[in-house]
Amino acid sequence: MPTDPRYSILFEPVRIGPVTAPNRFFQVPHCNGMGHLRPNMLAAMRGIKAEGGWGSVCTEVTDIHPTSDQSPYAEGKLWDDGDIPAVEAMTRAVHAHGALAGIELAHLGLAFGNQDSRMAPLAPSHRSIVLDEPIQARAMSLSDIRDLRKWHRDAALRAKRAGFDIIYCYAAHNLSILQQFLLPRYNSRSDQYGGSLTNRVRLLREVLEDTKEAVGDRCAVALRFAVDELMGADGLRCEEEGREVVEMLAEIPDLWDVNISGWPNDSGTSRFTQEGFQEPYIAFVKRVTSKPVVGVGRYTSPDTMVRLIKSGMMDLVGAARPSIADPFLPNKIREDRLDDIRECIGCNICVSADYNIVPLRCTQNPTMGEEWRRGWHPERMNPKRSDDSVLVVGAGPAGLEAARALGERGYNVALAEAGETLGGRVMLEGALPGLAEWRRVADYRILQLQKSTRVDVYRDSRLSAEDVLGFGFAHVLLATGSTWRDDGVGRTHHRAIPGLEHRPLFTPDDLMAGRLPRGEVLIFDDESFYMGGVLAELLVKNGCQVTLVTPFPVVSPWADNTMEQGRIQGHLLELGVKILANQRLSALDAESAVLACSFTDRESRLHTDAVVLVTERSPNEELLLQLQANPAALHDAGIKTLRPIGDCFAPGIIASAVYHGHQAARELEEPEDAIGFRRERIIVIG
Amino acid sequence: MPTDPRYSILFEPVRIGPVTAPNRFFQVPHCNGMGHLRPNMLAAMRGIKAEGGWGSVCTEVTDIHPTSDQSPYAEGKLWDDGDIPAVEAMTRAVHAHGALAGIELAHLGLAFGNQDSRMAPLAPSHRSIVLDEPIQARAMSLSDIRDLRKWHRDAALRAKRAGFDIIYCYAAHNLSILQQFLLPRYNSRSDQYGGSLTNRVRLLREVLEDTKEAVGDRCAVALRFAVDELMGADGLRCEEEGREVVEMLAEIPDLWDVNISGWPNDSGTSRFTQEGFQEPYIAFVKRVTSKPVVGVGRYTSPDTMVRLIKSGMMDLVGAARPSIADPFLPNKIREDRLDDIRECIGCNICVSADYNIVPLRCTQNPTMGEEWRRGWHPERMNPKRSDDSVLVVGAGPAGLEAARALGERGYNVALAEAGETLGGRVMLEGALPGLAEWRRVADYRILQLQKSTRVDVYRDSRLSAEDVLGFGFAHVLLATGSTWRDDGVGRTHHRAIPGLEHRPLFTPDDLMAGRLPRGEVLIFDDESFYMGGVLAELLVKNGCQVTLVTPFPVVSPWADNTMEQGRIQGHLLELGVKILANQRLSALDAESAVLACSFTDRESRLHTDAVVLVTERSPNEELLLQLQANPAALHDAGIKTLRPIGDCFAPGIIASAVYHGHQAARELEEPEDAIGFRRERIIVIG
Repeated sequence: MPTDPRYSILFEPVRIGPVTAPNRFFQVPHCNGMGHLRPNMLAAMRGIKAEGGWGSVCTEVTDIHPTSDQSPYAEGKLWDDGDIPAVEAMTRAVHAHGALAGIELAHLGLAFGNQDSRMAPLAPSHRSIVLDEPIQARAMSLSDIRDLRKWHRDAALRAKRAGFDIIYCYAAHNLSILQQFLLPRYNSRSDQYGGSLTNRVRLLREVLEDTKEAVGDRCAVALRFAVDELMGADGLRCEEEGREVVEMLAEIPDLWDVNISGWPNDSGTSRFTQEGFQEPYIAFVKRVTSKPVVGVGRYTSPDTMVRLIKSGMMDLVGAARPSIADPFLPNKIREDRLDDIRECIGCNICVSADYNIVPLRCTQNPTMGEEWRRGWHPERMNPKRSDDSVLVVGAGPAGLEAARALGERGYNVALAEAGETLGGRVMLEGALPGLAEWRRVADYRILQLQKSTRVDVYRDSRLSAEDVLGFGFAHVLLATGSTWRDDGVGRTHHRAIPGLEHRPLFTPDDLMAGRLPRGEVLIFDDESFYMGGVLAELLVKNGCQVTLVTPFPVVSPWADNTMEQGRIQGHLLELGVKILANQRLSALDAESAVLACSFTDRESRLHTDAVVLVTERSPNEELLLQLQANPAALHDAGIKTLRPIGDCFAPGIIASAVYHGHQAARELEEPEDAIGFRRERIIVIG
Repeated sequence: MPTDPRYSILFEPVRIGPVTAPNRFFQVPHCNGMGHLRPNMLAAMRGIKAEGGWGSVCTEVTDIHPTSDQSPYAEGKLWDDGDIPAVEAMTRAVHAHGALAGIELAHLGLAFGNQDSRMAPLAPSHRSIVLDEPIQARAMSLSDIRDLRKWHRDAALRAKRAGFDIIYCYAAHNLSILQQFLLPRYNSRSDQYGGSLTNRVRLLREVLEDTKEAVGDRCAVALRFAVDELMGADGLRCEEEGREVVEMLAEIPDLWDVNISGWPNDSGTSRFTQEGFQEPYIAFVKRVTSKPVVGVGRYTSPDTMVRLIKSGMMDLVGAARPSIADPFLPNKIREDRLDDIRECIGCNICVSADYNIVPLRCTQNPTMGEEWRRGWHPERMNPKRSDDSVLVVGAGPAGLEAARALGERGYNVALAEAGETLGGRVMLEGALPGLAEWRRVADYRILQLQKSTRVDVYRDSRLSAEDVLGFGFAHVLLATGSTWRDDGVGRTHHRAIPGLEHRPLFTPDDLMAGRLPRGEVLIFDDESFYMGGVLAELLVKNGCQVTLVTPFPVVSPWADNTMEQGRIQGHLLELGVKILANQRLSALDAESAVLACSFTDRESRLHTDAVVLVTERSPNEELLLQLQANPAALHDAGIKTLRPIGDCFAPGIIASAVYHGHQAARELEEPEDAIGFRRERIIVIG
């Protein structure tokens, strides 16, 4: 039972069909870039969540057959018995901590192209697949439907053998054949599986009943169902067929896991959506079914969670991203350690890992994805190796995390920040439109440092090389950050853009420091992620007429990986930003800006009053270079190790800075390893 | 020795440092979507090439260290000794047929973001990585350079232990740190590795010398070097520094493997480049060095190959794509079976597999990538199971391949084509601008059928269901193709576009049949691959003013996977095609076409005289449905199996049709297998 009785309700067991969840913390299925490609890593990651108190821990989307082949994405596979050992590793890891293990069985229908298996995708009707690939799906015959039901049933039986307690049927995210049959835009059948809603829901009902019949004696059968697609009349709506489906199937599943579709809606970022954003859509579900309900909404506050239960919104508090940012969130609530919770910032860097088919990562939790391969635990550091003291220079994300983690190791640490404010770029970027929640990266760490007896924080302490040499620390970590370039050099230009002297010139650093242009402003956005788009929004709000020139075909193309690109471009267009894609700023002269087409080099001209360059950054490495220039002085000063971390090592995203700061703390005084991490390996037969 | 003495020169052994290539056929390193993720599949694929007569067979790009991490791409890895077994499987498979095995060791520097290892990429100077990711590389210190040399040397020693005969140093494709040091656009160093060409070439020279010193006693050391970047003064040029580098290093490597950079230039498609397109760039190399030289140029003709050797262009005829299209090309030349060569069509579907991280595939060679997992051999079919006869309806790519392969199995086959011409869509699309070489898909198969004693071909033979039932064939394969939709339904529109009756309306089928619009034409390109762009070119050449409207951000976005997108869009813009990206055609009325923005749904209007819809296709399945409707009649007719193949099963690319036709031939009368192929599996430890 938790220390604080207000939260007792969160730790009540919940009956789900034939099984009982030990508490109301429910890690809903989520993708992770590990899947069938990295089963050892995956099992360890899920096990850590169970250890941290999540009473139910589920897999990612798990394909049931080679006609549902999400290649090259690293999702789950349960195509045949040979896939059992990989998923079994996960159920063992989860059960070891008393949690329930759930699996999300899925057939993706026309969502993917089966590029590995090379089998034609299946669909309700002959149609192009959803992905922009030159592949069309084939309308399922009645015999195909019988096969699909058998594959799903076989997969459920395999899942039961692998030890799962909860077995999902899946009809969400526009990623499931069961959902596609529901939707008139994909289903134009004229047989008993098309036409009326009763007909369109038939396959989902049959698969649910098949699953209950096959495994319902020992396993709970869950339905993950998207009640609304946020497409208006073009999609399913929670006031209409979304609700009707829940009414029609109300008592069949043992658990309703309800959300909104597609994935960019379900996992909206903090830039565009707030905590609890799904409640208006899913609120009706508990009034329609007597079965337990789980929902999500990026919840990190225990008070909110209590409200959700008491108000009858849900029975289990679902989480994907909050459980990634803090696998120990439940235990921290139980132990009344709310200050220690690393709250999800809603940045979707986690999602980007899945999109990029690399292990899950998290801006807030640098150990995410490293549990198996590096042996990193989110709540335990390796103990210090000596009584050496450490100086960390710079209190941005890398410096804060390094100081915090070194303190946790037991080192005495001095953290010297040149300015008055801690947090560095996190505080500056957190002041830009839509990014306020990102400040949680600093908030968590500053709170931890305040509680630490081992870390002393010095503000207004810009250090020279002489200062560093004079202090007598045995180890020095430099986290002095980076500076945006003001010459236009970046991905597109390898030399300075000619004529920049003809206009007032600004960089993101200027704008974040409050130095703003006026009038007609040209942003040359060569960076690919969020900065150009966010600054365009800032300038519009400050009265500028903004033209965003980018060599890419769209604004913020890499934000596809955080599922934000479409929203960003739509938002900027609505704000009146003029977007000139596939163009580079090639020169400025007294009259105008000269643009050149990315494809043809054809030039055009544009009037502008000022230019903002968003290209690349230079590491702030003056201090590093000064210290490295004199090894003898370092030696005489007793400095055993000197290491740059974060942006001052290599400029990157905030998640990289936190990670690198953490890594430096883990590695201090530890023996070096050539590779540094364990790897998943293929069985070589040949 | 070959049957035809004209080709004897191709079968001469060639000394390469301490090893001897048994002939002049040299499979240069090429990526394949297998790499470290699919080592068993990869070893079998390389082994088949050795079996087919390639005297030297090389790996793909193989990373030497986790700071060179091409995740998520399926390239080679030789980071540590644990990676040896996977590559050793390949050397065994190649040596089994007497060929030399080569490995392309690589450090990719700032080309990739190390998204799996999460290590900062290395570069000559602090710069953004080449990929559009929010990652910057770190300038290498002298200590980093020492480390890099050690990693390369260690990897070379590992490669030697794994049995490789040829060990590459790599400076090509804009994918190598050794090349990046050469290029002033990435290298702004002021130390002994920057500035003069002597300085910029230093690292490459050192690594070559290190490699020779480490493994040169038993292994040949090759240098893959891009002599020109086709960027004019912005890049390396073969008349200037490209040549100087060869002069400076002339006698150091045992083998010069020379090409042009980047990969889209080196592997240009037939749409934009011709056989032998690299000769003007690489011609100088043999005049500068006494060492053997290998080059590439999509060569498939033995006469051309002889000319290359005799004219002193190269000593070894390099090939990647021709060896994929026909792994037995050398043996077929040796045996004077030139008619049997499957010539590469230059479509780069092979490259798309690597880009999509799925196993290599080939439009011409349906067995490519299936050697291990399905046990398919490019030159051997499974023998027939009975004396049953087979009817194949339709002589497009699927029907031609099915008939050919069934004949090879020993079945008696009738191939009935409704029209006068064999080849179906291949002949029609092959008549479009730039796609003439694609007709080789039909040419090869038609020639094989002409030589076959088992396949009878019937032209002008449109068959009704009654015809099929009346013939008495035991097995029927339907390859009746597909038809482009004329209602606008596709990826974007799920219902017909309103108002289409207001303008003359065309589909790709119309245009390919010679029915062309006039005046101002709007192409609504919702398809994603080549068709919309090719038709725009066709219409411009026929005097139309063309506006291409596409919901995607660029024209032919999927052609990124064949490395053609930039060229296509540039070419269309040069031709005067107006491109309206991120727009859908939402309606037509008496005055104009109504477009809507993909991001905001904002509408705009455009005058047009005619509309071409490039959306999706419907399978031509009338015959299939008629036959399936009466199982009793099928039974009475003695038809044991009825199977639709190719586009009439599910419309796709030509490669899919050929593959599916081949698969149907392989599978006829064979026992069914639930999955159908073997899979690579991860070792589960947890």
